[in-house]
Amino acid sequence: MTHPISVAIAGLGTVGGGVLKLLRDNADVIAARAGRPIAVTAISARDRTKDRGVALSGLRWYEDPVALAADPSVDVVVELIGGSEGPARALAEAAIAAGKPLVTANKAMLAVHGAALAAAAEHYNVPLGFEAAVAGGIPVIKALREGLAGNRIFRLAGILNGTCNYILTQMRERGREFAEVLADAQKLGYAEADPSFDIDGIDAAHKLAILAALAFGRPVAFDAVHVEGIRRVSALDVAFAGELGYRIKLLGIARQSDGGIEARVHPCMVPAAAPIARVDGVFNAVVAEGDFVGRVMLEGRGAGAGPTASAVVADLIDIARKRSTPVWGAAFDALSNAPSVPMSMHVGPYYLRLMVVDRPGVIADVTAVLRDLGVSLESMLQRGRAPGEAVPVVLVTHETQESAMTAAVDRIGALDAVLEAPTLIRIEAG
Amino acid sequence: MTHPISVAIAGLGTVGGGVLKLLRDNADVIAARAGRPIAVTAISARDRTKDRGVALSGLRWYEDPVALAADPSVDVVVELIGGSEGPARALAEAAIAAGKPLVTANKAMLAVHGAALAAAAEHYNVPLGFEAAVAGGIPVIKALREGLAGNRIFRLAGILNGTCNYILTQMRERGREFAEVLADAQKLGYAEADPSFDIDGIDAAHKLAILAALAFGRPVAFDAVHVEGIRRVSALDVAFAGELGYRIKLLGIARQSDGGIEARVHPCMVPAAAPIARVDGVFNAVVAEGDFVGRVMLEGRGAGAGPTASAVVADLIDIARKRSTPVWGAAFDALSNAPSVPMSMHVGPYYLRLMVVDRPGVIADVTAVLRDLGVSLESMLQRGRAPGEAVPVVLVTHETQESAMTAAVDRIGALDAVLEAPTLIRIEAG
Repeated sequence: MTHPISVAIAGLGTVGGGVLKLLRDNADVIAARAGRPIAVTAISARDRTKDRGVALSGLRWYEDPVALAADPSVDVVVELIGGSEGPARALAEAAIAAGKPLVTANKAMLAVHGAALAAAAEHYNVPLGFEAAVAGGIPVIKALREGLAGNRIFRLAGILNGTCNYILTQMRERGREFAEVLADAQKLGYAEADPSFDIDGIDAAHKLAILAALAFGRPVAFDAVHVEGIRRVSALDVAFAGELGYRIKLLGIARQSDGGIEARVHPCMVPAAAPIARVDGVFNAVVAEGDFVGRVMLEGRGAGAGPTASAVVADLIDIARKRSTPVWGAAFDALSNAPSVPMSMHVGPYYLRLMVVDRPGVIADVTAVLRDLGVSLESMLQRGRAPGEAVPVVLVTHETQESAMTAAVDRIGALDAVLEAPTLIRIEAG
Repeated sequence: MTHPISVAIAGLGTVGGGVLKLLRDNADVIAARAGRPIAVTAISARDRTKDRGVALSGLRWYEDPVALAADPSVDVVVELIGGSEGPARALAEAAIAAGKPLVTANKAMLAVHGAALAAAAEHYNVPLGFEAAVAGGIPVIKALREGLAGNRIFRLAGILNGTCNYILTQMRERGREFAEVLADAQKLGYAEADPSFDIDGIDAAHKLAILAALAFGRPVAFDAVHVEGIRRVSALDVAFAGELGYRIKLLGIARQSDGGIEARVHPCMVPAAAPIARVDGVFNAVVAEGDFVGRVMLEGRGAGAGPTASAVVADLIDIARKRSTPVWGAAFDALSNAPSVPMSMHVGPYYLRLMVVDRPGVIADVTAVLRDLGVSLESMLQRGRAPGEAVPVVLVTHETQESAMTAAVDRIGALDAVLEAPTLIRIEAG
C-alpha cells in the first residue's frame, strides 16, 4: 500500500461532519478500495469552537478556505461550503488552478459556473468530482457518465428534491393543504426556515441542469431550465390526481429530440403505476432512458450527512485510484452544441382544473376556447352539483403544445364564470 | 483524439450481435466518451455463414476463439461465448496471460472460476470487466464497486433472473399455476426449452455470488450459496401471499453479520409495499444497504441484446479511459476472509403452508410440534371449512432459526392428518 492521499475539507456543516466521520469509521475498507489510506489533514470552517461531534485535533486549521488550495501538503480539496459564489467558487477555482483534484457537493455552483469550471479542469487536467451534488448517495453521476456511456440517452426524469417529495407525499396520504404540510415539515427539520430554494424548484433545477449536461454531453445550461415549484399544488388537485389514476410529483425532466434539448422542473401528474410515482417521502429517484439499455431507475436517499458523505468519499476513492472522466463525459471539443428548446414548444397532455359557477353554458364557453385553439380533450370531470355556486371542473387534454395551453389558460381565466386562475399541471409518462 | 482501440469479440449470439450493432450505431458518442474510437477488428463464432443482421466484412475471422488473444493487433478481448468451462474459460485465461484487458458477460465462469481469474488479472495487471454478467444493463457492478465504495454494505437483495420474475408475475396477475405459465413463457421466448438453469435458481445464484464478492470484498464463493428455485411455488401460495400483504419473489440475498456472510437464493414473501416487490415482469432490481448511504435500489432490464451490449460497451469505455478497479473492489491481499454462514443458521420469519384433514385436534398437534421446537407463531390462517376433507392452513412465525424450521417441517409432515409435504417460504424485508 502506498502513502496516504491527503485531503483538505472546506465547510464542516452536516455534510462535512459526515465526511470526516465516514473517513474515520470506514478507514479500513476505504483504504482497501482506494488502494491507499485517505486521510483528512487540513480543514476550514466558519466557527472553530463549534462542537461537531468529531475530533478535529491534529488537523491544520485555516480561517480562509481558499488557503487550503495553496497548502503544498494537500493532495485533494473537498468543497462543502455551498452557494454558487463567494468562498466556494473562489476555492474551487484556486484548487483547479493549483492542479489539485476537486470534490464538491455544490449543485448551485456547478449549475451556474459548471461550464467554466469544467473548462478549467480540462485545461489544468484536474479531476472534478461532484457525485454528491445530485441525489445524495445514489451514484447517478457515475451511472450516467460511465455506466450508461454506450447509450444515446433520450430522456431522463427525476425526483430530485426530498423536501418537495416529502410535502407532496404528506399531502396525498393525509389529504392536507400545502401550507399546513410545509409548516409541519419545517418543525420536523425536513424543510428550511426559508424554504423557497426547495419548494420553488430551484434546487431541483440545479440538479437537473447537471444531469442534462451529463446525459446529453452538453455544457451545463441552468438558464435554459424552465422552473416551477409546488406552492400552487392544492389538496383538491392531489385528490383529482388520485381519482384519475395519477400522483403529483415534482419532476425534473430533460429530453433530447431533433429540435434540441428540453429541460424543465415542474409538478407533474404521473401514472400511479409508474415506478417513479411510488417513490415517496424524502427519497430521490432518477430514471434514464437510453437507446440500447432501455429504462433504468436508481432510487435512494437524496440528502443527509450519511448519503452525501458516501458520494463524496466515492469521488475521493476514484481520485485515489486515478479513475477519471471528463466533467460532462467527453472532452470539450467533443461536446454537443444542441440548442435548448423553449418551454412554449413543449408538447404533451395537460390537466386543467377550473373553479366555475355551476350554471348552463359555462362548459360550452370553456370548450369553445379549447376548440378555437386546436386543443383536443381526452376527458372531462365535474365533481358535485351546486347550481349558482362554485364547482371544480377538470379537463384532460390529448397532446397539446404548451403555447396553445398558455393561451387557453389566459382566455379561460378571463371568462366571467371562471372564478380563479385555472390550474395547469402537465402529465408525464413517469 | 488518439488512435482507435481494437476489440476482438468471441461469440456472436444475441449479445455479440448487440455489441457489434451498438458500437456501430453509437460510434460517435462512444468515441467522445471513450476519448478514442472503439473498433471491432476480429471475431470468432461457431458458424461463419449464419446471418446475424450485421455486416461482418472487414473483420478478421478466427475459427478458434482462443486465437483472438494471440492476435497482436487486438487490444481488448470480449468473451461472449458463455459456459463456465471450455472455450470461454480458455479464452479468458489466454487473454489475461497475454496482458489483454478482458470484458465478459459470463456469470457462470465468474461465479465458478472468478477467484482464480481475478488472481490472474491482478498478477498480470490486466483489467477484467464484467458489468454485463449481472443484471444486464443496470450498472450495478460499477455502483457497488465504485459508487458505494465508501460504505460497509451489510445486506443486498436482488431480483436477478428475469425469467423467474416474469413467471411469478404472471402467476400472481393471472392466478395460474407454475407449469402453465412456464409453458407459455417458453412459447414466448421468455424461458429456454430447458429452463432449469433459470427456474432452479442457478443463474440467480451465479449473479448473487458475484454481487456478494463485490459487496463484502471477498473472493467469489459460489459453492457457499444456498439455492432453491421456483418450481414448488403454487398458485395457492401466491394467493395466500396476497392475502397476507406479501408478494412472492425469487430473491438473491447476501448479508454480512458478525458470524460471517450469508448468501442464498430462494422464493421469498416480500411485503407488497417494499420497492422490490413492485418490480415486475422481466425487470431486474438490486437493493444495497450501506452503513452511510442507507438503502439504494437500481432497477432495469436484466437481459436482452441491447441492455447487455450497453454493459459490455461501458466496460470497453472504462478500458479506453484507463479507469480500472480490482476485480472484487480491493487488491487480493486486502480482501476479507469472512467465513460463510451455513443456511441452517439463518434466522428470520417463515410462512408455512400445510394441507391438513379438517378435523378436531389437528391444529393442536401442529402447534405442539412448533412449541416443542421453540417456534413462536405470529398468525394462523385457515381458509374454508370442509369437515373430514383437505383444507389449507397457513402459519406465519416470528423470527426462527432455519434448523428449527427444518425439524418442524419434518415432524409436521409426518403427522397423519398432514396430507402433503409442507410448503416453507422465507419472509424477507425486501
